[in-house]
Amino acid sequence: MDFNQAALELHEKYHGKVGMVSKTPIKNREQLSTAYTPGVAEPCRRIAANPDDVYKYTFKSNMVAVVTNGTAVLGLGNIGAAAGLPVMEGKCALFKEFGGVEAFPICLDSEDPEEVIRAVEMLAPQFGGINLEDIRSPECFEIERRLEEKLDIPVFHDDQHGTAIIVTAALLNALKVVGKQLKDVKIVHNGPGAAGTAIIKMLQTAGATDITAVDEHGILYPGRPAGLADHKEWLAGVTNPRHLTGGLAEAVKGADVFIGTSVANVLTPEMIKTMNKDAVVFAMANPNPEVMPDVAKAAGVRVIGTGRSDFPNQINNVLAFPGVFKGALSVRARDINPQMKLAAVNALAGIITDEELNEDYIIPGAFDPRVVDRIAAAVAQAARDTGVARL
Amino acid sequence: MDFNQAALELHEKYHGKVGMVSKTPIKNREQLSTAYTPGVAEPCRRIAANPDDVYKYTFKSNMVAVVTNGTAVLGLGNIGAAAGLPVMEGKCALFKEFGGVEAFPICLDSEDPEEVIRAVEMLAPQFGGINLEDIRSPECFEIERRLEEKLDIPVFHDDQHGTAIIVTAALLNALKVVGKQLKDVKIVHNGPGAAGTAIIKMLQTAGATDITAVDEHGILYPGRPAGLADHKEWLAGVTNPRHLTGGLAEAVKGADVFIGTSVANVLTPEMIKTMNKDAVVFAMANPNPEVMPDVAKAAGVRVIGTGRSDFPNQINNVLAFPGVFKGALSVRARDINPQMKLAAVNALAGIITDEELNEDYIIPGAFDPRVVDRIAAAVAQAARDTGVARL
Repeated sequence: MDFNQAALELHEKYHGKVGMVSKTPIKNREQLSTAYTPGVAEPCRRIAANPDDVYKYTFKSNMVAVVTNGTAVLGLGNIGAAAGLPVMEGKCALFKEFGGVEAFPICLDSEDPEEVIRAVEMLAPQFGGINLEDIRSPECFEIERRLEEKLDIPVFHDDQHGTAIIVTAALLNALKVVGKQLKDVKIVHNGPGAAGTAIIKMLQTAGATDITAVDEHGILYPGRPAGLADHKEWLAGVTNPRHLTGGLAEAVKGADVFIGTSVANVLTPEMIKTMNKDAVVFAMANPNPEVMPDVAKAAGVRVIGTGRSDFPNQINNVLAFPGVFKGALSVRARDINPQMKLAAVNALAGIITDEELNEDYIIPGAFDPRVVDRIAAAVAQAARDTGVARL
Repeated sequence: MDFNQAALELHEKYHGKVGMVSKTPIKNREQLSTAYTPGVAEPCRRIAANPDDVYKYTFKSNMVAVVTNGTAVLGLGNIGAAAGLPVMEGKCALFKEFGGVEAFPICLDSEDPEEVIRAVEMLAPQFGGINLEDIRSPECFEIERRLEEKLDIPVFHDDQHGTAIIVTAALLNALKVVGKQLKDVKIVHNGPGAAGTAIIKMLQTAGATDITAVDEHGILYPGRPAGLADHKEWLAGVTNPRHLTGGLAEAVKGADVFIGTSVANVLTPEMIKTMNKDAVVFAMANPNPEVMPDVAKAAGVRVIGTGRSDFPNQINNVLAFPGVFKGALSVRARDINPQMKLAAVNALAGIITDEELNEDYIIPGAFDPRVVDRIAAAVAQAARDTGVARL
């Protein structure tokens, strides 16, 4: 199927993908006077007197802002706020269809992180949560950190944390298939941008002890002559416990796991053959992975996952964010903290039973009806357990 | 009926009044790949290559932002962004229910006009129009003027221009009932804030020649000892052609028309008795008008209108904005200019036929099915005639 052509036709037919509905009929004078003036003054007065009543009388309790500035849209780069709108509308449609969570796109025409932060802060009173999306690195780190500090509602950069939740859940199940433990395996991550950095943090939160990060200049280590821009200085300090140097080939030698958020075809069969037995490879470059599944298998990989829906084990972001926000909103969480993210990991991994689990089925499909509510319940419980729930 | 209690129950039941829908089903892998990745990349690429395609592939062509900063919500004053949300949601529900126009609330938590302007400018690429709402005077003038300059989409402060359109249409019909001409009558306006100023401008655009504006310090004239804050300096220069001085009593003596956007009970029977024969009074203070209809009639007023739905001749904003935006969006207007507003006035006034017209029926009811499309067609035509239409 030609998805490009089908997508153009779909987007033109409906003029985008999300729209507004009035939840209350306004067909006569009485309904008008209740939904609008004079009646509407009373909920306004209540909120003015008791700010928490905004959750009671408005859409805030179940409304998420999907915020971008269009600087890193899909793999298309800095295409701007308006050109990013189809992705944000799509995300909002998925929030609603998968999680029952309402969401509205907020595409901000600015590359200045300070302006983005201030605009989101000004908009925050009407939203129950903020989903940051397709904002380029390194600005995304600063924007997320500052908004988390400023706001009393969850702020979640899905490109980072959604991806990290799914990769970690998939890896837990893959290691179960090959009979290894997360704390024991040697993991190589190639392409530590925003998603990669979050994956590394999440794997460490989940118990990983030996992760080596590799970028286009080679293995990250403190004081690397090729330099360590932005967040990589930090990464170099918390990874690479065996003090490796060199390139990807040196990193993967003897490794158990390869995780790529990088570019097509960088992981060669020759490299794979130097990895440990029962290797696990997540090759998530889109649309063309770091290694094609058939090539990886032929070279000895036991479990391979990609970002693509036409191969088994799709690492698909839609598995996490609807349930994560549904759970966080359900208890009016102030935050989505690491414990809540880890709860989402374990819930997602646990959906596949031991009987179902196999090399080609380590992660549920996008339409698995068990996913959203299991994640939501786990996230809500973790919010309560860590004291960030307000309900 | 207790609208306050009914409103609280309604708002709590639905958690606000507007919500999101996905316009396209996402029930299988193919639909997911068309509405979201990988297919969604193609409309993004098209918009990046041709910015006008944002009208084709997203919700922009029929999506209005209802923007407030909560500084002048209804008659409740500066209650803040969150407390203003019920009104903005209500406005969005009316946009949809009456005009078929989609609208989303944008409640900005800032009293700084520069911040509001910049935030709206950053958000504008995804919207087809901006409806400013419940922003206090005088900031609302500056915010509207600057946004009109910056943006290539319509910016319309409904408290000003919506009210002005309806008052002017109602006055044209009232004068028809009493057999007078707009160019000949003496008009007194009491309470020249944002709405009043727009009413005066619109009446002058429509042909009025003798308007006297009165505030709490009395009649406006250049160099008034009590001062002329902000926009009143300008108003004093374009009104009061007979160089009156004094207070409201002096202003209404010999006047044909009183228009109030002020406070309850300021227009006394004694004052009314000094007005010309066949006087017209629009007493729009809410909830209690400048004079009650029965009192006005007893003192000799021929036609009385108020803002209330429980008396005849309700001056109700819902009559204008759905049709005005529907018309402007339908031709992708860059602006809503004075000619388009005047076209809306004439369309609205013309809906009531000469046979229907009488002292208690000078303006259509809120649910009159003729209103929206007649206004939309007139506004679209005026946009074409004045060169601001892009379709």
